[in-house]
Amino acid sequence: MTTTHYEAVPEVASDAQARGRDLVVMKFGGSSVGDTQKIKDVAHRLVAAREAGYRVVGVLSAMGHTTDELIRLAREVSARPNPREYDMLVSTGERISNALCAMAIYDLGHEAVSLTGSQAGIVTDTVHGKAKIAEVRGQRINDALDDEKIVLVAGFQGVSSANEVTTLGRGGSDMTAAALAAALGATVCEIYTDVEGVFTADPRIVPNARKLKALTYEEMLELAASGAKVLQLRSVEFARNHDVRLHVRSTFSQAEGTWIVDEEDPVLEKAIISGVAHTDCEPLFRAREIDAAKLFAQLAGVSVNVDTILQVSSDEIVFSAPLEDRETCEQLLGSLGIEWSMRDDLGKVSLIGAGMKSHPGIAAKTFATLEGIGVESKVISTSPIKIACHVATADVSRSVAALHDAFELETA
Amino acid sequence: MTTTHYEAVPEVASDAQARGRDLVVMKFGGSSVGDTQKIKDVAHRLVAAREAGYRVVGVLSAMGHTTDELIRLAREVSARPNPREYDMLVSTGERISNALCAMAIYDLGHEAVSLTGSQAGIVTDTVHGKAKIAEVRGQRINDALDDEKIVLVAGFQGVSSANEVTTLGRGGSDMTAAALAAALGATVCEIYTDVEGVFTADPRIVPNARKLKALTYEEMLELAASGAKVLQLRSVEFARNHDVRLHVRSTFSQAEGTWIVDEEDPVLEKAIISGVAHTDCEPLFRAREIDAAKLFAQLAGVSVNVDTILQVSSDEIVFSAPLEDRETCEQLLGSLGIEWSMRDDLGKVSLIGAGMKSHPGIAAKTFATLEGIGVESKVISTSPIKIACHVATADVSRSVAALHDAFELETA
Repeated sequence: MTTTHYEAVPEVASDAQARGRDLVVMKFGGSSVGDTQKIKDVAHRLVAAREAGYRVVGVLSAMGHTTDELIRLAREVSARPNPREYDMLVSTGERISNALCAMAIYDLGHEAVSLTGSQAGIVTDTVHGKAKIAEVRGQRINDALDDEKIVLVAGFQGVSSANEVTTLGRGGSDMTAAALAAALGATVCEIYTDVEGVFTADPRIVPNARKLKALTYEEMLELAASGAKVLQLRSVEFARNHDVRLHVRSTFSQAEGTWIVDEEDPVLEKAIISGVAHTDCEPLFRAREIDAAKLFAQLAGVSVNVDTILQVSSDEIVFSAPLEDRETCEQLLGSLGIEWSMRDDLGKVSLIGAGMKSHPGIAAKTFATLEGIGVESKVISTSPIKIACHVATADVSRSVAALHDAFELETA
Repeated sequence: MTTTHYEAVPEVASDAQARGRDLVVMKFGGSSVGDTQKIKDVAHRLVAAREAGYRVVGVLSAMGHTTDELIRLAREVSARPNPREYDMLVSTGERISNALCAMAIYDLGHEAVSLTGSQAGIVTDTVHGKAKIAEVRGQRINDALDDEKIVLVAGFQGVSSANEVTTLGRGGSDMTAAALAAALGATVCEIYTDVEGVFTADPRIVPNARKLKALTYEEMLELAASGAKVLQLRSVEFARNHDVRLHVRSTFSQAEGTWIVDEEDPVLEKAIISGVAHTDCEPLFRAREIDAAKLFAQLAGVSVNVDTILQVSSDEIVFSAPLEDRETCEQLLGSLGIEWSMRDDLGKVSLIGAGMKSHPGIAAKTFATLEGIGVESKVISTSPIKIACHVATADVSRSVAALHDAFELETA
């Protein structure tokens, strides 16, 4: 009995394989379904996969303007909308885009069925607005696939154990896609977006940045946490834990994008450094006269994702947090009755690569490169596959360019 | 066992009464929830009923522009949208308005919960676009009412026996309200609209038309079938069959509206004539060389609501049908290979009143009145409580005014 849980996913997987055809989950974000013409384009894309012989599950986000309009209505009605009702409201957005896409698929001569999160068996916990998926009951999807239908699932939503509509929070459609791919035993989970994949650096800063062919889950997690906004963190973690191969690619081209896979996957090219990520502003907090354990327990309690931590002395701690958590941090520190300060004139440059583990000297080269262009690192943090430096916001762009150049990331 | 079905409604009714508080179902149409301010007004209205001691179930239609926008999107995507997906799409409109209203109720210090048709237990047949309610499973609503919540139910929709989202067709929210009122044992089903009630004639034509205090179901059915657009026919039939007292009233005033009740109800004032209804155009068809039974079976097969029928001679039939069925009739007649014609220069004026049954001479006075103003009746049809005359479209308004005057309908 105790092993049932662990065996669930591979069991469903072999079930899908037993059906004799590979299954692909294809997720399309808000910019990919912005208007009805784009929804028709997505329908073509899904039908092409079906005609290539795949069993196809599509996951569509809401049309961008739909969600904005729903949020505007909620704000007009209430300053603090009831969370359960807010989920009832905003979850209609995905239902609209998926139903429209199903109609378009019929017009292309194929059968389709759009399912709400609830109908698709996406069971979540009861936390409205940022529910976590607890289980996927794939029966209805599998039945529809067996009926030769293209199945569309409303992303970003589920039904709670209390039988209420829930939403998964920002980027939740990635999570829906990854969970479905795991539960249904998909060969690949394709994440369609408005960029061509994951790049060695932000192409707006480094014109010769190169699209990566493949990354490990760990590298993608570090990149995402360090400022690369391509994929939701939680969905990458989930994919890693359930061995779902992700393929991030462009909605608007047929080119291959970037694969995100296990360290052992043959698609990987074992580069030492994969990319340079950055944030322009990463607030740095300094707190005195407080126990570190107590401080970070409190920060965790208000859901702040603390990044770098430095114990400066026995009674002084420095830490950084993402810009969106700045206000929460300030409120918490202000409430503790301690001496504290904050500076927001720094950004962060992060060098990431799975090959770092076995290649010493990367840190030394990083610091030498920054010194060489006269940039001072204020705070340094590392993981086995990352070196991150806080530098002045004004120095972020040229630091990224210099590191990209020094490690020759423009060449594969 | 065989009596279970018939006993279901009164059983639930006494159940509600056993809870010690009267239950009211309040239905608000599209014009009553046109924008967020109006939705807040509806919230006030529901809360007022709750504070007056009622158990309250609200049924809101979609905001007018929401449905228009959804239909526009569907048309952009597909010339003939798949019916199942069309229902998935348009049913989101009611979900939006009901969720917004629930938020507004919380801001007024009361608890509320908005339910989709499916969550509310509105079970229908499987006919997408014009499903019929087969059953109401009121458990979830009753539980929420027991929790002191105001319950909002998305009108116009249900879930089919095949577990698909269905819609009930035009005016379906009235049907939702009537069905809930019956199943939950409501004291009254209030239909809020943009008019003050049912009038003795259209006030735009007859300025001294009077708001009726009460009507029988039969009178309302004849009025609705004769052109009065206040209530959906099907919901009145349902209310009659299940003894639901309807109260049609204005969203924008506190005044009493018009009660629609059983013949024995004390609220009735036993008027001889209740009102004059009219349509400006009621197409008249003439068909030769076809058996009547065969013709009308075929018309029923394409869902035409044939109104007046006249067997002119052994091989000639005249019948009228509502304007919206004109094209369907023409297509059908055209396909039969018979001689036929259509004229659309006539409207219909109908005098309606339950008292007619016991008062002879109404027909004579009707014809005399029309003759007196030089109007010729082309076709006449009657029921025990109705006299209807086809007259030239140009004569409709003055015929209505003359009849209203002759029968002194301006005085109660």
